[in-house]
Amino acid sequence: MASSNGGFHSLASCLVLFLLLWTFAEGGKLLVIPIDGSHWLSMRPVVEQLRHRGHEIVVLAPEINLRIGLSGYYTMKTYSVSYTKEFVEAEFKKMGYRSFTPQPFSAKLSNLANISSLFLDSCKRLLGNKELIESLGESKFDAVFMDPFFPCGQIVAEHLSLPSVYLLRGLPCSLDFHATLCPHPPSYIPRFFTRYTDRMRFLQRVHNLLASLSSSLLCSFLYAPYNSVIKEFLQREATLLELLSHASIWLMKYDFVFEYPRPLMPNMVLIGGISCTQKKALSQVIHDYLQLSVGLRLSSFSCSLMPENPLRSSKRPLVLWRYTGKVPPNMPKNIKLVKWLPQNDLLAHPKARAFITHGGSHGIYEGICNAVPMVLMPLFGDQMDNAKRIESRGAGLTLNILEMTTQDISTALKAVINDKKYKENIKRLSDLHLDRPIHPMDLAVHWVEFVMRHKGAPHLRPAAHDLNWIQYHSLDVIAFLMAVVLLFLFISLKCCLFCCRRCCCKKGRTRKPTKSKSH
Amino acid sequence: MASSNGGFHSLASCLVLFLLLWTFAEGGKLLVIPIDGSHWLSMRPVVEQLRHRGHEIVVLAPEINLRIGLSGYYTMKTYSVSYTKEFVEAEFKKMGYRSFTPQPFSAKLSNLANISSLFLDSCKRLLGNKELIESLGESKFDAVFMDPFFPCGQIVAEHLSLPSVYLLRGLPCSLDFHATLCPHPPSYIPRFFTRYTDRMRFLQRVHNLLASLSSSLLCSFLYAPYNSVIKEFLQREATLLELLSHASIWLMKYDFVFEYPRPLMPNMVLIGGISCTQKKALSQVIHDYLQLSVGLRLSSFSCSLMPENPLRSSKRPLVLWRYTGKVPPNMPKNIKLVKWLPQNDLLAHPKARAFITHGGSHGIYEGICNAVPMVLMPLFGDQMDNAKRIESRGAGLTLNILEMTTQDISTALKAVINDKKYKENIKRLSDLHLDRPIHPMDLAVHWVEFVMRHKGAPHLRPAAHDLNWIQYHSLDVIAFLMAVVLLFLFISLKCCLFCCRRCCCKKGRTRKPTKSKSH
Repeated sequence: MASSNGGFHSLASCLVLFLLLWTFAEGGKLLVIPIDGSHWLSMRPVVEQLRHRGHEIVVLAPEINLRIGLSGYYTMKTYSVSYTKEFVEAEFKKMGYRSFTPQPFSAKLSNLANISSLFLDSCKRLLGNKELIESLGESKFDAVFMDPFFPCGQIVAEHLSLPSVYLLRGLPCSLDFHATLCPHPPSYIPRFFTRYTDRMRFLQRVHNLLASLSSSLLCSFLYAPYNSVIKEFLQREATLLELLSHASIWLMKYDFVFEYPRPLMPNMVLIGGISCTQKKALSQVIHDYLQLSVGLRLSSFSCSLMPENPLRSSKRPLVLWRYTGKVPPNMPKNIKLVKWLPQNDLLAHPKARAFITHGGSHGIYEGICNAVPMVLMPLFGDQMDNAKRIESRGAGLTLNILEMTTQDISTALKAVINDKKYKENIKRLSDLHLDRPIHPMDLAVHWVEFVMRHKGAPHLRPAAHDLNWIQYHSLDVIAFLMAVVLLFLFISLKCCLFCCRRCCCKKGRTRKPTKSKSH
Repeated sequence: MASSNGGFHSLASCLVLFLLLWTFAEGGKLLVIPIDGSHWLSMRPVVEQLRHRGHEIVVLAPEINLRIGLSGYYTMKTYSVSYTKEFVEAEFKKMGYRSFTPQPFSAKLSNLANISSLFLDSCKRLLGNKELIESLGESKFDAVFMDPFFPCGQIVAEHLSLPSVYLLRGLPCSLDFHATLCPHPPSYIPRFFTRYTDRMRFLQRVHNLLASLSSSLLCSFLYAPYNSVIKEFLQREATLLELLSHASIWLMKYDFVFEYPRPLMPNMVLIGGISCTQKKALSQVIHDYLQLSVGLRLSSFSCSLMPENPLRSSKRPLVLWRYTGKVPPNMPKNIKLVKWLPQNDLLAHPKARAFITHGGSHGIYEGICNAVPMVLMPLFGDQMDNAKRIESRGAGLTLNILEMTTQDISTALKAVINDKKYKENIKRLSDLHLDRPIHPMDLAVHWVEFVMRHKGAPHLRPAAHDLNWIQYHSLDVIAFLMAVVLLFLFISLKCCLFCCRRCCCKKGRTRKPTKSKSH
């Protein structure tokens, strides 16, 4: 819907922007405090892009890591931790196994507490490393770019008096919305782990409100130990929530084709779908394999590729599976094991008909981006809620991994492939998602640089941060107005009573003398 | 802060976007329902840009207009109204005169009611023009682009079953925030006409809450007559608020260097500063005049240009004044009257040191864009609040036109020119305002086209619209939970009483036989 005229206007603007950027090019210095695992996967491309744009990057990470490695894009500074690589790997494996057995709520809570205490321990070791902290202070950074899931980063930012930019999908117990003072009414914003949509029945709304209240309690329990760390390290009284509220920009991995529409604050920037960028050519091995016509892969990080109707054309479709463990002896011949799969590029392949995924937000955005309907098998964390979001939009089906049978998988796959509504719905979501005025990557890079250039973004911080809870909700004003009204009513009543009494007294007095006269 | 590498990345993205736009160019059809006067000034450039991009535009306007004229950019369709051009011009003049005399609140209310009834009358005449409405229906538009200050446009959009995009700064009595269900706590969001900042003292918060409540009453009074118009024309029961809530996108002339930070909804797109675009060369007459060194113009649409310190260098600075009325006989020699002034281009001139303005949002954004400190002389409407916003940011000074003296103007001008903090503050605001990832014009054009392409933006509409006031605020849930708690307490109490009674009875019964035995 654009004439060449309009196109030339946009091109002219772009050229001006490019020339400006090129002419005034000057690299800044950025401290990055990431989290290991899948969180790093969305942060790394932004870091690489910032390096491309001439900034000097220092990544501050624990010495024990699974994914954050040395790179030409950044200098790495590490701090010692109390755990070993074997311990982390074993914990990850345990987490995987636990997903396939029913877990009581207390066990889930205990897992959360374990992760939290691991982070707290790392934080104490980082802040206790005086040499490292001193060297960071001498480095004269322009800003800190961090994952607030490891909230220690903000304590470092406060110590160095640096503005911070966060990259996140969400924080436990809606801490992100509490810290930004972003309204989030429980009447239509489902809390995480409830598996509700934004259209809740009465009892669901009751549960959602209770979940909201209890998650606040959980937060106090999880993050209370940080208060003493803050007091000790920053030499002042402050809560972690208060520190998080100082973030200049919150880069939220949000897009409303996936998330439910809700209020936002001016310093929240939506960059959902940031990881779905380039479509690279597939390797020769995978390409040749796809020429054989069928591929179906299924694991916690999964994608499936198949022809028009694999389950009709062949009873045993060929399976392409990312698998790094020991090869089992009874491996069927139709399964091909590979050590790594280019998930996004495979989803972009024209033969991709359905996507079996565990429901991580990364994978879901890649599915949306490439318009492939999904069969979701959520394992843990936010995956149940993610799966519900896709299902509620008619773009996929959810299976319960604790109960599903082979027949269930087959039926679900047949449905998302043969029932056109799934493809139509995911195509509609994909079209809406990709029709944006600027790519999320450019947006993320812009706002990190903005904070580096202007030493923060104080003009986006609402004055609500200066109010306490009572003032924010105008409870003091309402109490005052009620007191005034009551006082007015009381005085009016007293006046009326006074007038009545005067009238009565007058009558009484007028009568009395008559009586005395009569005596 | 960008290397050539990063610049090339951005350029590559831009080129891809340009090629996509150019290749898939296809014009749509857009119905524009504007409002006359200064409102049209921000809508016109967007309309022209959309025409440039190949869309067919039809502007629907009353036959009596001051600014909306025939143009090569659009086809115009008009409807008859009950007033004459002379009447409108006289009303505008009256409004100007009234600004210079103190007005009681009742008179202001009466003015508002007059404008509202004028709009209502126009609306009835537009909807009553069956031939015109039929021809609009046959035109097969893709969307309606309108100014919701004339809310009749939404009734037309509903009748034609078309999605709508709004362009606005704000609506009376926060109707925009009610219609989008955007939270706007009165504790830190000052209501219009209160002249408060976002940091209010207790009594100011009391006033702000009362203003918020009374404005809702005012709204019911102002917009109630539309309900019968809607019922008659659309043949269904609906309030105007309900209809306005159907808008797909709200293009808000907002930027937080000027507005106070506050929550937003996903379908609100901020395009503040859209009118500050190209800096054209000044005409020879004005250019020659500026070479003489001094220019100072002052009117309700005003800008001033002066050298380093005009009030020291000359007691009577030369004045450049836009004036279209009859030239008065006692005109001083230092005043040059011109029929039109290129305000934005004059503000961009390096000699611009201060900007005397009535505080319209257009002028203020041009002042911010060009980093010229301001002396504000608000006349009516939102201008007092606008002036307060600039003053609270230390980028200008406000004068009361009903009380100011020549000395006040001189002192204020000296202050904003000589006190460096004003220039520093406006420069900071300007830097923040201009440092954006995409120009507001491109953003506005993108979202109008988005709605045309996708027939709306339903994915940005929060589920809160399906809840009533009680449900939205979870009052039913709270009442239910309180009832459950009370019931639980009541049952517990009853159980305790029952147990106590049983114990007492037993004791009583055990004692009684003992007594009888003793007898």
